Amino acid sequence: MEALKVVKIGGNVIDDPMVLETFLQQFSLIQGPKILVHGGGKKATALCKQLGIEPKMKDGRRITDATSLEIVTMVYAGLLNKNIVALLQKHNTNALGLSGADANLIEAIKRPVKTIDYGFVGDVPDNAINNEVVQLLLKNGITPVLCALTHDKNGQLLNTNADTIATEVAKSMKKQYETYLIFCFEKNGVLANPEDENSVLSEIDWQQYQQYKKEQIITDGMIPKLDNAFQAISFGVKEVIIKHANNINNNFGTRLY
Amino acid sequence: MEALKVVKIGGNVIDDPMVLETFLQQFSLIQGPKILVHGGGKKATALCKQLGIEPKMKDGRRITDATSLEIVTMVYAGLLNKNIVALLQKHNTNALGLSGADANLIEAIKRPVKTIDYGFVGDVPDNAINNEVVQLLLKNGITPVLCALTHDKNGQLLNTNADTIATEVAKSMKKQYETYLIFCFEKNGVLANPEDENSVLSEIDWQQYQQYKKEQIITDGMIPKLDNAFQAISFGVKEVIIKHANNINNNFGTRLY
Repeated sequence: MEALKVVKIGGNVIDDPMVLETFLQQFSLIQGPKILVHGGGKKATALCKQLGIEPKMKDGRRITDATSLEIVTMVYAGLLNKNIVALLQKHNTNALGLSGADANLIEAIKRPVKTIDYGFVGDVPDNAINNEVVQLLLKNGITPVLCALTHDKNGQLLNTNADTIATEVAKSMKKQYETYLIFCFEKNGVLANPEDENSVLSEIDWQQYQQYKKEQIITDGMIPKLDNAFQAISFGVKEVIIKHANNINNNFGTRLY
Repeated sequence: MEALKVVKIGGNVIDDPMVLETFLQQFSLIQGPKILVHGGGKKATALCKQLGIEPKMKDGRRITDATSLEIVTMVYAGLLNKNIVALLQKHNTNALGLSGADANLIEAIKRPVKTIDYGFVGDVPDNAINNEVVQLLLKNGITPVLCALTHDKNGQLLNTNADTIATEVAKSMKKQYETYLIFCFEKNGVLANPEDENSVLSEIDWQQYQQYKKEQIITDGMIPKLDNAFQAISFGVKEVIIKHANNINNNFGTRLY
């Protein structure tokens, strides 16, 4: 089976134009089929402030009222997505930007209100990715560039976590491709010592992960990330790789398998 | 040859959510391959004002400095394009939103500075439409929804007139389809008497057009529109139809051939 790389970048890459263009240039050098998923960065929050709207966050997630949804739609699907696409085109990657509404790529469900009303936030149910349209694009040499928006198939756009989108897309492609899910962030990988960027754990399998948790080498914020990663692997993703955005084309980083 | 309808809507349709959804519902009923091209409406100007930026216009065209380009990218490719796509998905049209940067759809040229510097405005040269990607989408039952942005293939997005995009796309598809170019606006068609919405000239060929101009039945603002339309016909577009957005699925309007 052919390899497919699904690469997710976050705000740390997007917020600095120099870092972004360097990353996109490197991303363009990846051979074979690939997909880019991007988060939102600080721009949505900055635009809220410029418009005098106080962003509402809860546990790191944006509470998305109607005005906030307008803003994230403008920033994610417009400003960021189209500038990323234009830069990839410059570097000869035939990129095509998409939200989950485009070609009905991701039909999500508005998060039910329990104790908190997250507003126009979408959760992605199992098997919600329109795998056929992704295949159609990849087979024609097109690189999908996905922003963190989905829809409910009833005319409503929904704000959706970019890590979730990347994971669900990678899971959905396992039948057609040997799928690699790559999270680019601001650290060199999973670190044995959070203070030391040279202490990258280069490989972790499920048993080692249990051991590292027991020994409290892996703690706190990394646990939900790695739980997600191993869940993706259990659903057929070949490897999850966590690495610095500068290292997209080398072997530095943590390989989970 | 199969018929292809390229439909352009302007601000008068986009600015009113009720009018927009009614139009999109009607558009969804059009059988066979179709493409929607949309302008920007008042939202970009409103957002400029909210951000304290004075929009600069010259002869009805926006002078697009770097900040204005950010705003039109957010509004055209983000807010408007994605909401239109989500509404079309609701009405079972498998829409996919695109700027000219996506899949390298339209490679434009930044307008050279003569007496006026229009800023980041793109002109579309002959044969600049990536006809193959449009065919790929249409053949797979996907309806392209194009916003009024292009790129220069060097990483720069450019603001481009939506009428021009619709015309160039229609011209480019003539080899594969019998192409109809439909401009929806706020009047019932080309009127013999501008004061009377019932005075629609239902058909105009080139010779009649010359006659109507000579008799000053067609004057002023309609002349550049009709010059463009007849130019498209001379380049192989089968018919250009000018009509009210409410009449997309009936025969009311002016047919130019």
